[in-house]
Amino acid sequence: MSIINDNFMLKNETAKTLYHSFAKDMPIIDYHCHISPKMIAQNYKFKNAYDLFLGGDHYKWRLMRSNGIDEKYITGNADDFEKWYAFAKTVPLMIGNPMYHWTHLELKRYFDIDEELSEDTAKQIWDKVNACLAKDDFTTQGLIKKSNVEVICTTDNPYDTLEYHKTLKDSFGVKVIPAFRPDLNNIKSDIEERMDYFHENGCRLSDHAVDEMNDEIIEKLVFLGEQYAKRGWVWQLHIGALRNNNTRMFEKLGPDTGFDSINDFQIAEGLSKILNRLEMKDALPKTILYTLNPKDNYVLGTMLGNFQKAPTPGKIQFGSGWWFNDQRDGMESQMKALANLGLLSNFVGMLTDSRSFVSYTRHEYFRRILCNIIGSWVENGEYPANMKNLERIIKGICYYNAKDYFGF
Amino acid sequence: MSIINDNFMLKNETAKTLYHSFAKDMPIIDYHCHISPKMIAQNYKFKNAYDLFLGGDHYKWRLMRSNGIDEKYITGNADDFEKWYAFAKTVPLMIGNPMYHWTHLELKRYFDIDEELSEDTAKQIWDKVNACLAKDDFTTQGLIKKSNVEVICTTDNPYDTLEYHKTLKDSFGVKVIPAFRPDLNNIKSDIEERMDYFHENGCRLSDHAVDEMNDEIIEKLVFLGEQYAKRGWVWQLHIGALRNNNTRMFEKLGPDTGFDSINDFQIAEGLSKILNRLEMKDALPKTILYTLNPKDNYVLGTMLGNFQKAPTPGKIQFGSGWWFNDQRDGMESQMKALANLGLLSNFVGMLTDSRSFVSYTRHEYFRRILCNIIGSWVENGEYPANMKNLERIIKGICYYNAKDYFGF
Amino acid sequence: MSIINDNFMLKNETAKTLYHSFAKDMPIIDYHCHISPKMIAQNYKFKNAYDLFLGGDHYKWRLMRSNGIDEKYITGNADDFEKWYAFAKTVPLMIGNPMYHWTHLELKRYFDIDEELSEDTAKQIWDKVNACLAKDDFTTQGLIKKSNVEVICTTDNPYDTLEYHKTLKDSFGVKVIPAFRPDLNNIKSDIEERMDYFHENGCRLSDHAVDEMNDEIIEKLVFLGEQYAKRGWVWQLHIGALRNNNTRMFEKLGPDTGFDSINDFQIAEGLSKILNRLEMKDALPKTILYTLNPKDNYVLGTMLGNFQKAPTPGKIQFGSGWWFNDQRDGMESQMKALANLGLLSNFVGMLTDSRSFVSYTRHEYFRRILCNIIGSWVENGEYPANMKNLERIIKGICYYNAKDYFGF
Repeated sequence: MSIINDNFMLKNETAKTLYHSFAKDMPIIDYHCHISPKMIAQNYKFKNAYDLFLGGDHYKWRLMRSNGIDEKYITGNADDFEKWYAFAKTVPLMIGNPMYHWTHLELKRYFDIDEELSEDTAKQIWDKVNACLAKDDFTTQGLIKKSNVEVICTTDNPYDTLEYHKTLKDSFGVKVIPAFRPDLNNIKSDIEERMDYFHENGCRLSDHAVDEMNDEIIEKLVFLGEQYAKRGWVWQLHIGALRNNNTRMFEKLGPDTGFDSINDFQIAEGLSKILNRLEMKDALPKTILYTLNPKDNYVLGTMLGNFQKAPTPGKIQFGSGWWFNDQRDGMESQMKALANLGLLSNFVGMLTDSRSFVSYTRHEYFRRILCNIIGSWVENGEYPANMKNLERIIKGICYYNAKDYFGF
Repeated sequence: MSIINDNFMLKNETAKTLYHSFAKDMPIIDYHCHISPKMIAQNYKFKNAYDLFLGGDHYKWRLMRSNGIDEKYITGNADDFEKWYAFAKTVPLMIGNPMYHWTHLELKRYFDIDEELSEDTAKQIWDKVNACLAKDDFTTQGLIKKSNVEVICTTDNPYDTLEYHKTLKDSFGVKVIPAFRPDLNNIKSDIEERMDYFHENGCRLSDHAVDEMNDEIIEKLVFLGEQYAKRGWVWQLHIGALRNNNTRMFEKLGPDTGFDSINDFQIAEGLSKILNRLEMKDALPKTILYTLNPKDNYVLGTMLGNFQKAPTPGKIQFGSGWWFNDQRDGMESQMKALANLGLLSNFVGMLTDSRSFVSYTRHEYFRRILCNIIGSWVENGEYPANMKNLERIIKGICYYNAKDYFGF
Repeated sequence: MSIINDNFMLKNETAKTLYHSFAKDMPIIDYHCHISPKMIAQNYKFKNAYDLFLGGDHYKWRLMRSNGIDEKYITGNADDFEKWYAFAKTVPLMIGNPMYHWTHLELKRYFDIDEELSEDTAKQIWDKVNACLAKDDFTTQGLIKKSNVEVICTTDNPYDTLEYHKTLKDSFGVKVIPAFRPDLNNIKSDIEERMDYFHENGCRLSDHAVDEMNDEIIEKLVFLGEQYAKRGWVWQLHIGALRNNNTRMFEKLGPDTGFDSINDFQIAEGLSKILNRLEMKDALPKTILYTLNPKDNYVLGTMLGNFQKAPTPGKIQFGSGWWFNDQRDGMESQMKALANLGLLSNFVGMLTDSRSFVSYTRHEYFRRILCNIIGSWVENGEYPANMKNLERIIKGICYYNAKDYFGF
């Protein structure tokens, strides 16, 4: 039996009530992800369980490599079932890893599978998933519609034509909006024109990989921030990745293949400079700050407070546990830091940040963890069991805060 | 109903026994705070709830700004009740924030108020607090006397005349002692004379904001440390703030108005140099090290051990969770780091670090958290339920250790 | 009564089952320690409780100094019982410190002592321990044999003659293998010859104190790593100590006397360079990375994943909580980081890192903590109560993973 049941991750009675009454049925605003607009527009049909679950998922590849599995069965020329099997036999070893939870949530929610994935069940689950994927409602659009998603923001190159976004406009009941992600090492002179083009096509959000914090990067971010403020966009700063550490594998497989990790440079003074210079020009956009290094949770959590400003509640946001922190301990650390240092109640909440079409269950995972934390505070007598206030807080973090903040 | 009751924050039976038997009634030695000696000496009477709770409290201002409240209702020209109301309506959103706990502790302990502060109760609580404040025993001295305080150390500019401290000498049954806080960017040639002047007026304690850790700062701290050792003073180093991040607001409101945050520079080698150079001259004073960045808890917790020296138990102290860390998670991290790396039993414990005359309840908050941690260790079988030893440890951390250490 | 009982540190029923069924009886592979091969070879007999427990143990000395005890009773000319007594009276103040647990585990397991060590019991425990130590089976070899130890790796200077290791070869049923620990500030031209000499004498493991992360150190580590890869050795990098902080005491007592602490330099980019340069040459040995600063747990936990490679499961290991982190919170942080970011199941587990002949109980301590974490995951419904998988995981981490990884 798999671990997924109604009260998964809900360890106290209040948490169960909060989740089932207030969190569970809220629609999803997935304001940052990496799924392919082309695959949505073409309503892509997955070939099999490998294609859906493992095709581009470097989180899983890393775990398989950690298990001593040969690259042949990860990104090499083994056949799809062999790769699926290599993954399946690694799953029972993922004790304490979010992948164990995500995988079984995804199998249960989309395919009603209750068995633990393992070498013993690899074949039967492969068959069951594939049988579903053969149906018409298991395409990309079908999976999204099953997930109660209202808005998706993809992550797009400034030179993307946005052709798929144009096609998608209201075509299947879910808004698919582009987000502007310039390469900070390569800002060209026509960048403002590209912003205008994105703006015309519905973009209201940008994203940046801040992999170093030097004067040149600060300068560029101040320039970009001012442009976003002018257009009323939100900007996101993803701070602290150390990418492509393994040159041998980078040359073989390229970027985003599972060879990135967490950097540890100093961020406080640089970040303060960026935000302050923009604020001095009255040109600081709504901002979401993410850190990859959890040691910086308290630096970010206090940086917010320096630049909060009416009339937006939580104008400067502390982004949810990102990438390697996108698990229970990471989410709890981020939410507790935010709560201790500011107003958790105004948090815009979860995003998938994913390349996968079944990762909407991470919103469920997040909501369960959120309800569990808040439920434990209530049961410990640290916040009153006032259901009106709790409803407002939970529904806000799951849905309404993002809705109000982004105004999509 | 508010959350405050006899067993607030006490989650196990041993914790309850420890708190009620040993911690609750210990007097308070508030060895570091920022209250105004003038307001004590003049026995200031507060105009209303705004004046007492919100007047100079940038912790609260930050939370109000995080809630999108216009600066008019924070530091602007709205009237006092409007500001109180703006704060009150933010309170129910403070889930998980220590301000939620502090506020209700203060309302309960000083004004016997059991309701949650919110927009619904703002007016009735305003009236009740104001009615109390109109009485003669709700002045600054009255509030201090209600709080079982034995000693207060204020924080003073070296050029302060200490006129109010002179007036206060034993005037109302509570010792009010100055502490010497030089500006490290502005040490003048008469600094030693000023120390002598402070010494004559009862000062035995100094304080320093270590906002950077460079050679010049190290040099100055070595110089000052030697002077303090000569006079038998304790010194405190508050390490790691990043101040006045928002220039626009600094120009409008000045310092200490809610625009400071946590820095992330390296501290280990610099701090080691300061302490070592003093120890080499046999001129290392009793020292209290505070960090604003909780990532450095383990650096400080181990630095202590390098310079401990007979005959003082805990000669080098790890200061309690400071400023942004002055909440349950922050205090627990600091105490667990201290316990894991040294002797928690010799800890000099809590201080308010506050500008407010009702913040003595933070000692209560600290004591509850302390008893809860130690109670949980006992109940988990990690330390024996030996009440004689536990009494010594709890009373020590709440009162006797500070009494012996400072020798006021 | 002391706190040691069958279910010490085991707070849930599953934890108890896991510990007693799977962990408790596994043999110990102590792949990194600092005990003296000479003392083993000569089957040293301890003079008394002081000699066994306090003689070279700077962990204990630090705690005694933190308690204001005069150096005379720590490393000075007081007699052995006076020192023992000074330690004993500090013990009840060690609430929350692992030394409290270690001490009582050691007294219970080797001497069947159930009393708390304190000033009241100091004399009776002194007598009881000394009576045991007078027996023939309480020598170094006797203590090791009582501890279910299969392999010990000592830590040796490259210029050690290894004479004692030669003598010891299979002499008393426990393998005692040298490990190669060069001084990175002093690598001589004959270093490869010394490796060959160590290799001939059974060495398959090296160790390095990485106390800074600059170009010169990186260069040296790349050179050494390539040599180890060629020989099929494992290497260990112990990163982040700040040593000999107290010059006055260093001049008096030398190194390793309790004046070391945690540094906070940046490690991510340097470490990435070392591992990447070796991997580019296909010369990256099996690697164990330890950090002294727990803020870097997530940096290390993600760095592993960049260089994992078939066929070894967990080729790059995240070393167990080291030195100041060798306690419950530190071990839990390390194991949770590893679990969140990789595969805890493939962890090679505990090592004593100790100079003491009774510190094998730290393996017991680790195993209890491990079973407690995993038990809590199972009871919280985060991993199935599948005893076959749990047995494999627990036995793996306690014994089989190290056995397979090192291949001694």
